Amino acid sequence: CVPFVAAAQSGGAASVTFYGLIDVNLNQERAGGDRRTGVDHGELKGSRWGFRGREDLGSGLAAVFTLEGGFDPTVGGSEQGGRLFGRQSYVGLEGGFGRVTLGRQYSPAFVALDPLDATGSADRSAGLLTRKAGGVDPAYEVRFDNMVKYRSPEFAGFSADAGYWLGERGGSRGDARREGDGWGIAGLYRSGVVEAALVTQTVWRDATGGRVRTDGLGLAYDFGPVRAFAAATRDRESGSVGRGRARTWDVGAELRLPGPNTLALSYARRDESHDRAAEDAHGWSAYFLHDLSKRTTLYAAYSTLTNDGRANYALGNLRPDRGDDPSVVMAGVRHRF
Amino acid sequence: CVPFVAAAQSGGAASVTFYGLIDVNLNQERAGGDRRTGVDHGELKGSRWGFRGREDLGSGLAAVFTLEGGFDPTVGGSEQGGRLFGRQSYVGLEGGFGRVTLGRQYSPAFVALDPLDATGSADRSAGLLTRKAGGVDPAYEVRFDNMVKYRSPEFAGFSADAGYWLGERGGSRGDARREGDGWGIAGLYRSGVVEAALVTQTVWRDATGGRVRTDGLGLAYDFGPVRAFAAATRDRESGSVGRGRARTWDVGAELRLPGPNTLALSYARRDESHDRAAEDAHGWSAYFLHDLSKRTTLYAAYSTLTNDGRANYALGNLRPDRGDDPSVVMAGVRHRF
Amino acid sequence: CVPFVAAAQSGGAASVTFYGLIDVNLNQERAGGDRRTGVDHGELKGSRWGFRGREDLGSGLAAVFTLEGGFDPTVGGSEQGGRLFGRQSYVGLEGGFGRVTLGRQYSPAFVALDPLDATGSADRSAGLLTRKAGGVDPAYEVRFDNMVKYRSPEFAGFSADAGYWLGERGGSRGDARREGDGWGIAGLYRSGVVEAALVTQTVWRDATGGRVRTDGLGLAYDFGPVRAFAAATRDRESGSVGRGRARTWDVGAELRLPGPNTLALSYARRDESHDRAAEDAHGWSAYFLHDLSKRTTLYAAYSTLTNDGRANYALGNLRPDRGDDPSVVMAGVRHRF
Repeated sequence: CVPFVAAAQSGGAASVTFYGLIDVNLNQERAGGDRRTGVDHGELKGSRWGFRGREDLGSGLAAVFTLEGGFDPTVGGSEQGGRLFGRQSYVGLEGGFGRVTLGRQYSPAFVALDPLDATGSADRSAGLLTRKAGGVDPAYEVRFDNMVKYRSPEFAGFSADAGYWLGERGGSRGDARREGDGWGIAGLYRSGVVEAALVTQTVWRDATGGRVRTDGLGLAYDFGPVRAFAAATRDRESGSVGRGRARTWDVGAELRLPGPNTLALSYARRDESHDRAAEDAHGWSAYFLHDLSKRTTLYAAYSTLTNDGRANYALGNLRPDRGDDPSVVMAGVRHRF
Repeated sequence: CVPFVAAAQSGGAASVTFYGLIDVNLNQERAGGDRRTGVDHGELKGSRWGFRGREDLGSGLAAVFTLEGGFDPTVGGSEQGGRLFGRQSYVGLEGGFGRVTLGRQYSPAFVALDPLDATGSADRSAGLLTRKAGGVDPAYEVRFDNMVKYRSPEFAGFSADAGYWLGERGGSRGDARREGDGWGIAGLYRSGVVEAALVTQTVWRDATGGRVRTDGLGLAYDFGPVRAFAAATRDRESGSVGRGRARTWDVGAELRLPGPNTLALSYARRDESHDRAAEDAHGWSAYFLHDLSKRTTLYAAYSTLTNDGRANYALGNLRPDRGDDPSVVMAGVRHRF
Repeated sequence: CVPFVAAAQSGGAASVTFYGLIDVNLNQERAGGDRRTGVDHGELKGSRWGFRGREDLGSGLAAVFTLEGGFDPTVGGSEQGGRLFGRQSYVGLEGGFGRVTLGRQYSPAFVALDPLDATGSADRSAGLLTRKAGGVDPAYEVRFDNMVKYRSPEFAGFSADAGYWLGERGGSRGDARREGDGWGIAGLYRSGVVEAALVTQTVWRDATGGRVRTDGLGLAYDFGPVRAFAAATRDRESGSVGRGRARTWDVGAELRLPGPNTLALSYARRDESHDRAAEDAHGWSAYFLHDLSKRTTLYAAYSTLTNDGRANYALGNLRPDRGDDPSVVMAGVRHRF
């Protein structure tokens, strides 16, 4: 066996870092009369393993890459449809001009809005109504293939993140050329106690020009022992995709408790309209975190959604019937390496 | 390229170790009139690659994880149905209380009984009759998904290993809730020249409460130049799975020969009953190992099974007709890193 | 996170090196009226990640292994049909006698001829006509499963590379036993400014003894600022596979330009005969490379093929109609780690 010793990153020309995160919990889900006891994973953060590297090219220029795969430790398989490096997989250059990267990458909307939800990427939090399609399809997805991305340098707290991505078409003509393509821009502001973001993102969903668009904004304010969060998004279908509209918003707070404990609360609501299947829901989540170290955290959490009569949004594995309200209670551990 | 230098494990707070094993051989299998010459892998030990880590949390507490995948070096693909970390994939805590881990893990029966067979995990040894289903299905499997496992501290040579695992059901009611669930307990004793184990393991196989159970015991005694082994298991089906019974036993010896050479011999027998297709067989194996170093071993081996008229147990890739006796001769190399 | 620091390889008994390459480009392909703009990968060299290791066994003997997977950074998935270590996956021993390795490995033809094409492994270069099947199937493939390979020591600049590989059959009798089997031998000469190779390779394609064979030779000569290349292959089908014949040749040059710049040019032609679908084509490629460092290279390239009326050889993703001529223009980055 060949250990990788934990050491300060080389001051030299190039370095590669191996890292990861494993998050497993015991939980019970309910929805209508159904009940499911499970060992699941990736609640606070998706379980991952990866390599990231950086080579100093001189004159402030550097080559950078990230290869990061998601996996399910409860069964040992890759996530993201079995992809090896399905979470992030890109290479690029950065320097005084900013950063240009190519490959499978986070969308500008995700980079900007995810940190502005108190229960962030948590897998079964109510806040995920922002990214869920009921009858209306959001353009707010976490990551896209074939993306060219530009990140600006930060200037007086302001920065921008912009990406264009290409669908996996064969050769084609006319509208079909844009099927699966998309673009997004995020404006970010960070300064002292305030963090804010404004985003727009569009995806061409079909070969006849139908597309979906998500606009969003988010804000976090740090009051000291409490950090408050608010975010809202608007989804709009157009063309052959339909004429659906949706608005979501969520508010939340992160409370730093005595000792190495944190409580994160969020409430979210999704209202769909202009669509036959318009599905509305709201819900809330509470996550209690106890840090054993910087790397290792125990947690317990509860989440529930209230579906209106037409809606069947899920939390986790159970597929509720229309109007049934899913909930989940869980306890687990997250370990970073 | 970024080398991982072989170094002593960091005395610091956390470390990750990369390790693996590649085992490839040339072999010829026979069964009835069929013959197959092959390049195969994982004979002495399954080919694997993985990461294991440990973080010291203070007060004797530590976070631990293992991510280990099996792969087939003759074609380059993942084993365990294509899973990335299909051999072991868990995270947990250990301390004075023992060790609690969650994820895909070895069964208590495997942890206890596998070291008590002279030809252990060897892929085409006769000893594997213990884990093979003819007409009767054993609960003795190597690993399960979704396991919560507890390992006790060792006390005067005694320790215990207990696990409960959950099937991958959707939401469900009544008996169906337990489909795929199972549990196992192993009691282990190790002291000087003696090693002993006692296990029981049960798996719910269907949605109507049908289940299989395996009980087993094993013993190894070290006579100095010879280490002797004996193990026996009993499989019992109940409920809607059937009423089959099976008894297996195997005996073996590991002979330390002059020079860095070892000869491992085993004889095993499986008797099934109370089942229409009750299939009986017995067989023996001989493995000769020559160590080039602690990490690298050359080996040659022979295995054969004698199937009774209704049985068609296989050794490796050929599927014998009922009553045909498979055999295999092989020579290969195992390298650990 | 646990960094692997870039360090000199251990002088000790064993070492494992982690390495990789990411190559991504933006490109536009054309063929007939079709056009495709894409983010693609692996143009100059296939994107890869891997581990290679070496253990010193004393007396000049060493154990060696390589586990190397191909992946597509534009989507994050494994290449080679989703295999984890699909590029190379072998273990073996080397010493004064040469080197014997078992597993999935490069074919002798690839090892010998690929470095003798000015645009080498480039994914959409005209030179790949050598390995493309129109109506006639070449035995010149890059890698095979289940290979036993021997590489001789070098003597006065001469060396040899020989392999035999086994198809993935079940047990079988007669001709079927050789289905998928193959063998190849390459003679290599390297001395000062000259590099030369002579190869032959045969693969049994079906269960009735039909087979294909490729013979080839290649030459590179270093004139200083220009390195010139020439190679030719001949494919012959026999038995139940058909009676097709094909000849390919390609010539090229690598020009070292002022600064860290290189221009590689190649022209290739494939002539098929004795086959109903005999497809002929020729084409050329130009690759311009600008090194930012030893590890990181920017590139721009153009390739085109001229298909005769019956041929539809492709360059990349577009599938041309018969007689249509594909071309591609691209710009990208290759980063090694």
